[in-house]
Amino acid sequence: MAGTPQSWKDLANQLRSDSIRSTSHAGSGHPSSSMSAADLMAVLLSDYLHYDFSDPHNVKNDRLIFSKGHAAPLLYSMYKAASAITDAELLTLRQIGSRIEGHPVPEPNGLPFVDVATGSLGQGLPTGVGIAWSAKYLDKLPLKVWVLLGDSEMAEGSVWEAFELGGHYDLNNLVAIIDMNRLGQRGPTMLGWNSEIYKQRAEAFGWHAIEIDGQDVEAVNAAYQEASNVTDKPVCIVAKTKKGAGVSFIADVEGYHGKAVPAADVEKALAELGNPKGDIRVQVNGCRDGEPTGTYTTGTYMPPVYEMGVKVATREAYGDALKALGAAYGHVVAIDGEVSNSTFADKFKKAYPERFMEVYIAEQQLVSAAIGLQVVGKAPFASTFAAFFARAFDQIRMGAISRVNIKLAGSHAGVSIGEDGASQMALEDLAMMRSVHGSTVLYPSCVTTTAALMGEMVNCEGIVYMRTTREKLPVLYSSEETFSIGGSKVVKSSANDKAAVIGAGITLHEAIKAAEMLASEGIHIRVIDLYSLKPIDEATLKAAAKECNNTLIIVEDHWAEGGLADAVNAVFMESGADHPVIKHLCVTEMPSSGKPYELLAAAKIDAAAIVATVKAL
Amino acid sequence: MAGTPQSWKDLANQLRSDSIRSTSHAGSGHPSSSMSAADLMAVLLSDYLHYDFSDPHNVKNDRLIFSKGHAAPLLYSMYKAASAITDAELLTLRQIGSRIEGHPVPEPNGLPFVDVATGSLGQGLPTGVGIAWSAKYLDKLPLKVWVLLGDSEMAEGSVWEAFELGGHYDLNNLVAIIDMNRLGQRGPTMLGWNSEIYKQRAEAFGWHAIEIDGQDVEAVNAAYQEASNVTDKPVCIVAKTKKGAGVSFIADVEGYHGKAVPAADVEKALAELGNPKGDIRVQVNGCRDGEPTGTYTTGTYMPPVYEMGVKVATREAYGDALKALGAAYGHVVAIDGEVSNSTFADKFKKAYPERFMEVYIAEQQLVSAAIGLQVVGKAPFASTFAAFFARAFDQIRMGAISRVNIKLAGSHAGVSIGEDGASQMALEDLAMMRSVHGSTVLYPSCVTTTAALMGEMVNCEGIVYMRTTREKLPVLYSSEETFSIGGSKVVKSSANDKAAVIGAGITLHEAIKAAEMLASEGIHIRVIDLYSLKPIDEATLKAAAKECNNTLIIVEDHWAEGGLADAVNAVFMESGADHPVIKHLCVTEMPSSGKPYELLAAAKIDAAAIVATVKAL
Repeated sequence: MAGTPQSWKDLANQLRSDSIRSTSHAGSGHPSSSMSAADLMAVLLSDYLHYDFSDPHNVKNDRLIFSKGHAAPLLYSMYKAASAITDAELLTLRQIGSRIEGHPVPEPNGLPFVDVATGSLGQGLPTGVGIAWSAKYLDKLPLKVWVLLGDSEMAEGSVWEAFELGGHYDLNNLVAIIDMNRLGQRGPTMLGWNSEIYKQRAEAFGWHAIEIDGQDVEAVNAAYQEASNVTDKPVCIVAKTKKGAGVSFIADVEGYHGKAVPAADVEKALAELGNPKGDIRVQVNGCRDGEPTGTYTTGTYMPPVYEMGVKVATREAYGDALKALGAAYGHVVAIDGEVSNSTFADKFKKAYPERFMEVYIAEQQLVSAAIGLQVVGKAPFASTFAAFFARAFDQIRMGAISRVNIKLAGSHAGVSIGEDGASQMALEDLAMMRSVHGSTVLYPSCVTTTAALMGEMVNCEGIVYMRTTREKLPVLYSSEETFSIGGSKVVKSSANDKAAVIGAGITLHEAIKAAEMLASEGIHIRVIDLYSLKPIDEATLKAAAKECNNTLIIVEDHWAEGGLADAVNAVFMESGADHPVIKHLCVTEMPSSGKPYELLAAAKIDAAAIVATVKAL
Repeated sequence: MAGTPQSWKDLANQLRSDSIRSTSHAGSGHPSSSMSAADLMAVLLSDYLHYDFSDPHNVKNDRLIFSKGHAAPLLYSMYKAASAITDAELLTLRQIGSRIEGHPVPEPNGLPFVDVATGSLGQGLPTGVGIAWSAKYLDKLPLKVWVLLGDSEMAEGSVWEAFELGGHYDLNNLVAIIDMNRLGQRGPTMLGWNSEIYKQRAEAFGWHAIEIDGQDVEAVNAAYQEASNVTDKPVCIVAKTKKGAGVSFIADVEGYHGKAVPAADVEKALAELGNPKGDIRVQVNGCRDGEPTGTYTTGTYMPPVYEMGVKVATREAYGDALKALGAAYGHVVAIDGEVSNSTFADKFKKAYPERFMEVYIAEQQLVSAAIGLQVVGKAPFASTFAAFFARAFDQIRMGAISRVNIKLAGSHAGVSIGEDGASQMALEDLAMMRSVHGSTVLYPSCVTTTAALMGEMVNCEGIVYMRTTREKLPVLYSSEETFSIGGSKVVKSSANDKAAVIGAGITLHEAIKAAEMLASEGIHIRVIDLYSLKPIDEATLKAAAKECNNTLIIVEDHWAEGGLADAVNAVFMESGADHPVIKHLCVTEMPSSGKPYELLAAAKIDAAAIVATVKAL
């Protein structure tokens, strides 16, 4: 529809009115942060957004992300105006069971029109970068990605990672709209209404920047027009607004953040807005023309095959398998944080350069790009050193709320990386990834396992994490062996095992060595390859406890908390008197630089330590 | 000392030579990334750094942080040139047991001249912001904070958080030196040698920027001179360099990242550098004049007192106690991420505005500022919503390697925050914080406990985390009660307890309600307030298992992994047949918006769920 200044104003006031009504009905929420952006969103919804509300997952849709998720009431008011939800549902805001949550959430808890959960600030734009990159370079669709940001969240470094990468990749289909309302939660922002500085920053990061009065609908319209005509770079609209704009006693008032208008004041507030009837409905433009050129071919995954006994690092098998997945599945995309020659993602890059996204050293953007890519149907595999995923834990956490399907591959786990020292050693990544809702956590010890699990990962829902090892290790399994998420392998066993030793990654190889050393002395142990931590193979563990003298020894290249031992121990939580004795070998002191096997010995997680533990039983 | 162009060049070549020698001796490391910055660091060490190497922790020292920690060989070569370490020690680089680690590490593993561990990129400058803020505003010392950054790490958002805050606080004592050598690990950076863009970005963030040829020692000297004269803002020196500069076959060569010069090429390389004798020693300028004006007074902490039964939120008690700590200890500093009216850090702010640092919505900078503050003897308390500390997990992890003493306070834990929904609910923070090496994890259920534990926290070493609750809850304990890190409280017990219910935070109150409901039916349970998760009160837990029918019920407002249950379960890991039956009530489905007690019920972690669990035993 082609709006007029009056129609835009009327719609904006309805959006304000609905934001006030819904939050006051809920008794909490963010009307003031919604009202500042109402004019910006009215013009967008009326004239610029191309979105088929009857087909929200259509890859040809524009995308609208409220990076300032607390302005959710405005977003829901837009959905109402677009006839996507009813006024009755709007008024269920913040109630248990409602899809209209306090911050936007996708299905199943929330709405199909919400692509990603927001509410932890500074994550919408980096996600938008992932979507826009895919639209521009993979699907070659003419869609636009519109991201509404608050000015407070411009303080988040993640926003500047997105500015940087958006500029670097000339994402002319990406429009950042900064709702510069000057007031944060507890008071003024750093820059207040100094839109010139925001503009300078955006330009310095390679963006086309436009300063406007965000309450002037004609200026807003002109800005979108200008944005639509920019063909070589992303656009940043810096819109000067007033928080609570439209109602005199809320507008630009400090202390009105996150507060519903008291019931007694609602009538007065709505009167100032001209008592909108709430019956405006907008016929939103449908999808733009064009068909996606991205390939969605599906073939058969042919995992790489490794000769038994040869030494190959699991991180290298990750690269081999990723490349093989690339051949089989057109929607597999690899992303890496400037370490692709260490994670071996560069094997994929060399084979499928067009489906490889380099995000440089910006791990928050790495995960957010993956989240953006899966919004538009890609299967993203994001890789960096396992330690550095800690940089993006909040993005991963939010991804779980968004119910994203992404795959994360962390290389260089544990002390066994050696000389580089503790800063590069992931020793808490398993704790982090296990704690993510609905996550899958894999930790192969062998390249054959790695290759097989990669075939499972590609179709696994949720956030799937694979931990790999820097060191080259002997191939343990032939390509005939099968592996599954939730499985494990009994590598060694006998009729009279004194204990079962449970390892993963490099410690499994130490367990095998220990078993061989002990066997030479006539002592037998079971050795279990616990390559899947979450879900975990309860049956095999319980059988081991029963059959191995009720004794388990867990050996892991990880801190004591949150890794293999906590995972195994949880299996036996309710077992009471049937609980095995569990001995735990793990990293307990801060490691230093050193040779990998020196460090395994120093941490007492090597074969010698296992042998000593078994003998001391 | 006052150097000359020739002395600077000679020193630079010695630094290069020593970087090559030490890494080639180690067989790994980063000579090329060291060589690019050798001229920059030679002039700095010779003429501009004020640092008493015999008294590294003197608060009056300048600070030098290698944000590009992989250039550690250069840093160690500087220490050698300053006679702080011997050539023999330099050659222990990367060996186990050496203080000369692959990336810089402070004591006890590393060196006293290293203030913070680096190696995860983009963290040096934010730490420098904390130090510079303290020097400028608290201690009012004329020292300088010099931070050497790589150009690759300019992609990290955390760097831009530091640029932003450094500019905002006019930190004219902070100098960022960008070693723009054009090449990252796997290839060219985004911006290559485009120093003009780095300059524009720095200026847009409020910095004075200087572009120079970083291999021209006279230009470097002029830049430091210019930087010394800037009195109103921080300074960014963008230095164009060549990676591997000084040796023709390494300089600006792709693929020479993180590689020692092969033994066969060392002689040739050193010859190109003029075969430095390695005997140059620099008399580094001592501390600058001035005495710190920051108060270091120590009085007696007078914890706030609450009336029994009144309802007060633990987050509010955090604010009360923080203010009381501020009165008692002059070195207590509060930092907050723009939510001080929610975390109640604003109580401290109002009382001691000069010791309150607002870092706006930049949680990475929040933690890094705390790390910087403790470098110079402050006791920083950093607060934000518990969920948002996930944003800074990598900084926290690195802080553990640095052996920092910081206090982190996360408010708004769990589903009980209510209507705001999942994005604001910390449900994995305990898993995260427990996995941090040497951490202390506290989770008070009552304001009296909160106030008491705050008195313990201030002097507790390492990273101390306190989780607080949004909801107001009844005061359980009188001010006479004592609490200690590693302690717990038995809130209810009888001679015939059917089980022990273990809770913390809001779930403890649910456990108490459940006990009352059950008591009315003649069923007795023990209730344990597990306010210290790490360290944990093993004795009380073991006694409870023995005395309460060998049955423990753990109730927590957290995901299943990494919280109370894993902590308690770990206590019994080795107990075999004496292991209690442990039932676990925790959050298992993605929560939505709703009223706090509706959400506790929906998650089945409320009193009714506890009652049902006890009855089903």
